Amino acid sequence: MRDYSITIIENQEKKQKPDPNQLEFGKHFTDHMFIMDYTEGTGWHDPRIVPYQPISLDPAAMIFHYGQTVFEGLKAYKTQDNRVLLFRPEKNMERLNMSNDRLCIPQIEEEFILDCLKQLISMDQDWIPSAEGTSLYIRPFIISTEPYLGVAASKTYRFMIILSPVGSYYKEGIHPVKIFVEREYVRAVAGGTGKAKTAGNYAGSLKAQEVSEKLGYSQVLWLDGIEKKYIEEVGSMNIFFKINGEVVTPALNGSILEGVTRNSVIQLLNHWGVPVTERRISIDEIYESYKKGLVEEIFGTGTAAVISPVGELNWEGEKMVINDGQTGALSKKLYHTITSIQNGNEPDPFEWTVEVKPNC
Amino acid sequence: MRDYSITIIENQEKKQKPDPNQLEFGKHFTDHMFIMDYTEGTGWHDPRIVPYQPISLDPAAMIFHYGQTVFEGLKAYKTQDNRVLLFRPEKNMERLNMSNDRLCIPQIEEEFILDCLKQLISMDQDWIPSAEGTSLYIRPFIISTEPYLGVAASKTYRFMIILSPVGSYYKEGIHPVKIFVEREYVRAVAGGTGKAKTAGNYAGSLKAQEVSEKLGYSQVLWLDGIEKKYIEEVGSMNIFFKINGEVVTPALNGSILEGVTRNSVIQLLNHWGVPVTERRISIDEIYESYKKGLVEEIFGTGTAAVISPVGELNWEGEKMVINDGQTGALSKKLYHTITSIQNGNEPDPFEWTVEVKPNC
Repeated sequence: MRDYSITIIENQEKKQKPDPNQLEFGKHFTDHMFIMDYTEGTGWHDPRIVPYQPISLDPAAMIFHYGQTVFEGLKAYKTQDNRVLLFRPEKNMERLNMSNDRLCIPQIEEEFILDCLKQLISMDQDWIPSAEGTSLYIRPFIISTEPYLGVAASKTYRFMIILSPVGSYYKEGIHPVKIFVEREYVRAVAGGTGKAKTAGNYAGSLKAQEVSEKLGYSQVLWLDGIEKKYIEEVGSMNIFFKINGEVVTPALNGSILEGVTRNSVIQLLNHWGVPVTERRISIDEIYESYKKGLVEEIFGTGTAAVISPVGELNWEGEKMVINDGQTGALSKKLYHTITSIQNGNEPDPFEWTVEVKPNC
Repeated sequence: MRDYSITIIENQEKKQKPDPNQLEFGKHFTDHMFIMDYTEGTGWHDPRIVPYQPISLDPAAMIFHYGQTVFEGLKAYKTQDNRVLLFRPEKNMERLNMSNDRLCIPQIEEEFILDCLKQLISMDQDWIPSAEGTSLYIRPFIISTEPYLGVAASKTYRFMIILSPVGSYYKEGIHPVKIFVEREYVRAVAGGTGKAKTAGNYAGSLKAQEVSEKLGYSQVLWLDGIEKKYIEEVGSMNIFFKINGEVVTPALNGSILEGVTRNSVIQLLNHWGVPVTERRISIDEIYESYKKGLVEEIFGTGTAAVISPVGELNWEGEKMVINDGQTGALSKKLYHTITSIQNGNEPDPFEWTVEVKPNC
């Protein structure tokens, strides 16, 4: 590892913290942020923790025009005995570099960035809410900054980490959502950027989301871009189906995001002896199984919600109501187990959590 | 139209202009820029022309995370008698709103923005280079600015126009380029964002471009994302084939950008009585025609190059050399005619050019 030294400029005017009972997702930000710059020839340089503040960019900066950018999302949790835990952060660093590769952005040194992240969280640890279901959302991201309008990889980048205290995703208890199976719009296609965590995938998804919301659905189920037949993701989550005692989830095919929660769910199911298979799943198959009464549970997995049960699936007007619109037993058990490991309330047999030591 | 008044803050320190013989594309920017903001409830407001300067954004601004953004590209030309001409700018405004619709960005008032653009160009008209093949490149763009990490359409936006004097695309005369037919990566797919001029399409294209450059090719030819068989675009241009006396170009299918130069070429060919068809074209068909000696010319069309002849097409190792690697007669005629209309050197039978009056 390179011998970096991190410059720290402490915020002298600490912000007032939001009411922990009124926390919304991604609206409030802590006192500090991490920044590191990249210049062709020099590499990544000048890592620093500075007061959270606006950044200044040339209007021609490439991020504004050609979207060369990647990001990650993970959380820090406060345990009952006041320790701070991260959940599998090395997976996020690994995926960030995988996204970097697809977007032609220079690789970061994963261990070093994880150290910087820990230091940043340490400084802002008073911002981590402690009520059940709350956490500190962590957003690392890299933007291309060269002021140049040619379509080419940027020669300069900025890496940043910002932190946001977030409330419980399920304020009134875990409840199933209604999902619309999308047939017109496509999130990603093999050979595209679906596997990478990059802005364009999300920008392209807004229209379908808007249309489905108008129809009374909270998310869309994305089908593959080629045959519009095989299931890919739900909203910005991975998806699982429990059919006749067996759990299935779409296999990673290059256009599906490799979710950390997805991976954790598969490991847990294997550990519990619940049969789980990663394979291609068509929407027709789900419908056939539904008609036979075999679809027991459907749930999305992601960092924000952890487990998001699906209560209804609307496929071209056919409304499939899953488990009477109630949260299934397996969904509940997965949610409880993963959040308990994350919060340090239950043993961590997989060594998923990483402690952030004060002033590390 | 709403009664906007444009605030103007003149730059007191005029920048030194770059050497007109050393102009590169998109590297230099003029003294002023146009800005207008959008806030939910208020709409677009506060249109202003201000000195070209960095902009300041919250690190959580949505543009940095979810890429909700659109842009346009057009040019202003100086005529021999010192008038300033725009080329079909209403087409760009129209396309900007089409892109806005796909990206869930509020519509702009096309005529008003065109007026603002003329005023901006008027103020910076000394920056328009006058040598043959040079022009002032115009980049309108809209970015999402709300500081929020939820995946949703932003509630605030910034519209900007920046200007960049650009040199001749063909410093040493128009010359054909070598193109690599891309089979692994995909630019766009039906149901995606290919038809919109939005950042993510360009970010996703960088990797294929990087790979093809390493193989000695200057651009890639994009095939459709479904069958990887039908021709879509070349690099960031539309593409035309002259086969046995007939010109063909891929039909607009939702994943191809509706190029202004593409449309102008089709109109010119019709005007000249050259048969031209918009239809689905497979790469196999091109190869078959090539083997029969029927492929006479291939060229890309776009705002930057106008006409970019293709001298070689590499399809899975099969190298098709087109017109002995020389620029064809039709490519030359199209380039000459379009640039002459743009520069005001030839009559403009289609009323494509729009004059920018001083101090309008």
